[in-house]
Amino acid sequence: MMNKLPVIGIMIGDPAGIGPEVCVKAIASGELVGLCRPVLIGDIGVLQRAAQVSNVSLIFDAIESPDHDARQGAVSVIDPGGFKVSSCPFGIASAASGRAVLDWIRIGERLGKDGTLDGLVMGPIETASMTAAGEISDMDALQPPGTFMLRMTGRLRVVPLSEHVPLSVAITLVNPGIVFSLIELLDSTLRRWGFAAPRIGVAGINPHAMFEEDQQKIAPAVLRGRACGIDVSGPLVPDAVFRQTMDGRYDAVITMFHDQGQIPVKTVGFEGACTVYIGLSFVMLNVPHGTAYDIAGKGVAQHLSMLAAIQTAARLASGSAVAPLTIPAHGGSDPQLQAESV
Amino acid sequence: MMNKLPVIGIMIGDPAGIGPEVCVKAIASGELVGLCRPVLIGDIGVLQRAAQVSNVSLIFDAIESPDHDARQGAVSVIDPGGFKVSSCPFGIASAASGRAVLDWIRIGERLGKDGTLDGLVMGPIETASMTAAGEISDMDALQPPGTFMLRMTGRLRVVPLSEHVPLSVAITLVNPGIVFSLIELLDSTLRRWGFAAPRIGVAGINPHAMFEEDQQKIAPAVLRGRACGIDVSGPLVPDAVFRQTMDGRYDAVITMFHDQGQIPVKTVGFEGACTVYIGLSFVMLNVPHGTAYDIAGKGVAQHLSMLAAIQTAARLASGSAVAPLTIPAHGGSDPQLQAESV
Repeated sequence: MMNKLPVIGIMIGDPAGIGPEVCVKAIASGELVGLCRPVLIGDIGVLQRAAQVSNVSLIFDAIESPDHDARQGAVSVIDPGGFKVSSCPFGIASAASGRAVLDWIRIGERLGKDGTLDGLVMGPIETASMTAAGEISDMDALQPPGTFMLRMTGRLRVVPLSEHVPLSVAITLVNPGIVFSLIELLDSTLRRWGFAAPRIGVAGINPHAMFEEDQQKIAPAVLRGRACGIDVSGPLVPDAVFRQTMDGRYDAVITMFHDQGQIPVKTVGFEGACTVYIGLSFVMLNVPHGTAYDIAGKGVAQHLSMLAAIQTAARLASGSAVAPLTIPAHGGSDPQLQAESV
Repeated sequence: MMNKLPVIGIMIGDPAGIGPEVCVKAIASGELVGLCRPVLIGDIGVLQRAAQVSNVSLIFDAIESPDHDARQGAVSVIDPGGFKVSSCPFGIASAASGRAVLDWIRIGERLGKDGTLDGLVMGPIETASMTAAGEISDMDALQPPGTFMLRMTGRLRVVPLSEHVPLSVAITLVNPGIVFSLIELLDSTLRRWGFAAPRIGVAGINPHAMFEEDQQKIAPAVLRGRACGIDVSGPLVPDAVFRQTMDGRYDAVITMFHDQGQIPVKTVGFEGACTVYIGLSFVMLNVPHGTAYDIAGKGVAQHLSMLAAIQTAARLASGSAVAPLTIPAHGGSDPQLQAESV
């Protein structure tokens, strides 16, 4: 446990979406007090507009670095400047928004890497703005190199070996070396999060994990992990391991491809899940909903997912994240869910 | 709707397991009255022993064919004879048990095909007995040729294009022809079960169904289905379609490989699901638990899954199966779940 509160940076997300609104509502809720010191990363003008439409009374204070305190009673904001809120109507994607978001992401990552932030929460970003900005071809380019994406909902924590690649390619990427690397990384990550003796399950590739491939590509990595003292099991029956994990048998599951773990996570928790990048020196996670352009600026956006994401970042960063994650699911009809999520 | 009750055959399962016990308990519960006319297929001596250990009072009457009635108050049994219950201790696999079960399965399938049974429920069978009998190499050999296996739990109904093949092979089996055949078969099956206008979802192969393969191998089959007047959609995002189905958007989902649908079914319902073979002229389904040799003969076996399976067969056969399926899940620690299920 840390003696001082973890400092959590919150990248406010696409300025034309609901990101800034859910950020100000989450902070105004008072639910972060005593849990972390939040530092918003984004444009102060955008945040003032968000507070106004959300009918929330907050004062924002630009600080140079997370090491500096804001004025008494004000919310700390790191604002590199250069964004014009007056040219940014709600609900419209733009290259200017995309460029601003990229700038804010880079600031957050730099402050995370140099240790001035303990955690970084990414507000919802808009693919159209990002690609209009011309610096990235798709959202996958935003994943920090060398990281894996762990999804959490309830007691389910799953992390795949690969992300958005065709299944036929994903299968060829499975080998004992990468499986072992992820076992080792996941074990050390879970320990930092507060698990004294993490129990890791590794799913097989095939039905009932009953083919040669499961034995040849996964079993050796599990044996090597056990030889290193890690409590790891596998290859496990893919259609059984997620229920077993929900029932408490494993703390996290390594999956062989994207959908193997995303299907149970999104079926059980739908969007009530968040994504954590593992393999970084600091905690970094995504809020589990999109920009919801259709309701942006109306003051109706639901902030509970953002609040839960910030609370989760704080708990992960302070090594007290053993409890099941509860992020409220919005239900299928909620417009916040219309935007794509990873 | 049929005027007379559907006749449901119930193959009692491996004689050394809990199958005969859950059959007699399900019938003795009285919950089948008015829903179907049950006809047990198996050995009368085995059933008498099961009734005795279960402390259930039933009289069994051997009938020649399901067309014939048993004596008033007795339970109809089709018993080909030749099995010695005295040489069959509880909890031990044997070739004799395997041969008897194969015999009973063949009787049930023949009576289903010739229309004397409207439905057939398969009690739990034991791999070790079946292979000891030497007539089949693995349980997959018991799947009737040309059928697909649909799993149901709650509002989830899923049917994969392939079963126990390596994932790398399963992917190569996906093509517009087989996808269209299954769309057509599933539509006609759901109509027979009572869905006036079935809504079918077809999952994609890849993450977010966003690769060329999804468009080339699945989209043409969906278009062809729609041209035939079938309400079919796809390729759908694999990690979203199951939650959407649980929320009521689709009546059934075609999946591209075994685990794609089995993972959500078993995560949500665990063993509280049953498997229906589609593509037959009669309803045929498996009870969703194993032989539980460790508790066989103790009179403690839970019959609710068997009861639900018989009730489901009756509803499917009489075209009134639109309601969500409720099969009680036993929970992870139940010994009935230890045996392998499909």
